[in-house]
Amino acid sequence: MELSEVGEFGLIDLLRAKVGEPGEGEVWVGDDTAVLRAPAGTILFTTDLLVEHVHFDTAFIGPEDLGYKSIAVNISDVAAMGGVPRRAVVGLGVSPDLEVEWIEKLYAGMRECCDEFDMAVVGGDLSRSKELIISVALLGNPAGRLFVPRSGARVGDAVCVTGTLGASAAGLRLMREENKERLDLLKAHLRPTPRVRESQVLRKHLPTAMIDISDGFSVDLGHICESSDVGVVVEGGDLPLVDLTGVTVDESPLQLGLSGGEDYELCFTIPQDRCAAAMSAVTKATGTKVTRVGEIVESSRGRVLLVESGDTPLEAPGWDHLRV
Amino acid sequence: MELSEVGEFGLIDLLRAKVGEPGEGEVWVGDDTAVLRAPAGTILFTTDLLVEHVHFDTAFIGPEDLGYKSIAVNISDVAAMGGVPRRAVVGLGVSPDLEVEWIEKLYAGMRECCDEFDMAVVGGDLSRSKELIISVALLGNPAGRLFVPRSGARVGDAVCVTGTLGASAAGLRLMREENKERLDLLKAHLRPTPRVRESQVLRKHLPTAMIDISDGFSVDLGHICESSDVGVVVEGGDLPLVDLTGVTVDESPLQLGLSGGEDYELCFTIPQDRCAAAMSAVTKATGTKVTRVGEIVESSRGRVLLVESGDTPLEAPGWDHLRV
Repeated sequence: MELSEVGEFGLIDLLRAKVGEPGEGEVWVGDDTAVLRAPAGTILFTTDLLVEHVHFDTAFIGPEDLGYKSIAVNISDVAAMGGVPRRAVVGLGVSPDLEVEWIEKLYAGMRECCDEFDMAVVGGDLSRSKELIISVALLGNPAGRLFVPRSGARVGDAVCVTGTLGASAAGLRLMREENKERLDLLKAHLRPTPRVRESQVLRKHLPTAMIDISDGFSVDLGHICESSDVGVVVEGGDLPLVDLTGVTVDESPLQLGLSGGEDYELCFTIPQDRCAAAMSAVTKATGTKVTRVGEIVESSRGRVLLVESGDTPLEAPGWDHLRV
Repeated sequence: MELSEVGEFGLIDLLRAKVGEPGEGEVWVGDDTAVLRAPAGTILFTTDLLVEHVHFDTAFIGPEDLGYKSIAVNISDVAAMGGVPRRAVVGLGVSPDLEVEWIEKLYAGMRECCDEFDMAVVGGDLSRSKELIISVALLGNPAGRLFVPRSGARVGDAVCVTGTLGASAAGLRLMREENKERLDLLKAHLRPTPRVRESQVLRKHLPTAMIDISDGFSVDLGHICESSDVGVVVEGGDLPLVDLTGVTVDESPLQLGLSGGEDYELCFTIPQDRCAAAMSAVTKATGTKVTRVGEIVESSRGRVLLVESGDTPLEAPGWDHLRV
């Protein structure tokens, strides 16, 4: 059945059943706004806009994965602040000839991600649009009043990254070729795992700065440097790059790892003397590897320097939505 | 200068200056999420998605008005819950060949509306898109833990509405004809005033149900009836309809008032014995007229009945995004 047959309000009724039961004293779908109960203190508030043909192509990504990912990328921003996700609203722009079942699957995927991180979609808005639009806004809480900014990196801090760099970008390329040999890479692209658990362990070890890798490792690490007014030297050989054994991709693992983006791994800085304990605590609690990849230096040396043979200023571009 | 020349991050830097200074202990633009300080209690959370060619046409609405309106329509939802708006994030989908100046004006309009209601845009996300997309998510607070739901209307309650019905729809039609004779109607469409002040006075008089009129009076009043499981009889002759003296519009004031939508007036129900005091308190404090237009009846009589000559079930359609 097409959306035009059930109409906006029919669809809202259908989706209301998909989002789950409101908490005590809360109102979710069905009023002018959602009503939430919140503890006093600090709120984290973020939004991500996903647009068809820019962020995704429905020829390659199914509605469940797309729903999961649209929530996951927002959660990743909250994890990058050291927080836990709580409640989201979703603005959806759809074509009236889209199948109702497709939207139901999209919401099922969102729900799956929400359940995994103990959060919920509590409301939203629907509109017609030519391109499919998924706009998620998310509220989270840091533990206590503390959060981990981008701006706290200090000269001498170690620079670390969780997981693997470049897997999502490699997965994107395989997906477009409909190559299903490496499901691990496809999954890295279609269902990234936001690093909430890793962030919760890590924050107890007081990282000085943190960001999630969405636009690309070099660009995102550059954001930390710019916010903190420091530079960084990255040891190219130490980067936890995607293993491309057996698959053919135009770019090298290093290119994908530096510029690919959408890894949704955490990149953080931490004083050297707390680094080893933080790394092993994260791995012990979550199974996720953490790699030390460089060191924060004076900003006068440049922003992001890659060591391969001598200090080379890193020109690797990341994703810029308005320059592509 | 075009957006493609400054790039995503250049634009973010420009906009950071436009949104104002963060409150004590808050972080706005420039980290993974905004960081807000919040009192304990209840949070109102809402989102509205505005899409080019559906919600607006840039041939007719300028960036300042569009910015103002995109914030105002979200504030209106918070007012409809009896709350005050606090903080918003904005997801923006734009074409890279758009002028930077246009976006700066869009943000200036948003800021104007924010300043008027003591709130702020604290962050957002940017993407490329073919159609212009403005997605706003807004946090508000009710006064105390109380909010005014859609579901509290009781048989016998009076039904009231603030301001005028149909002015925005009439303004839309004049705007498309580039007819500037009635600036009041154009303003009703381009710069609707969300009824925050009216709502704050009204809530002390304990309305039982409330909604803002976005999709059209008949549809939105229908939402109150459905949520409250009641019906309503509306006196057609009592409706505060737009005065169309001297302008030619295809529809009658009654048609525009019932179905036009985008009035962003408040429609509320209240026990008869508190109605007169509530109405005069709102008008005295804000200058906004309030009109009693009908009465809540048993749901068995039907949902929305219009009295003109006998009870006529009201068929007037409002806006359904997926059925247009």
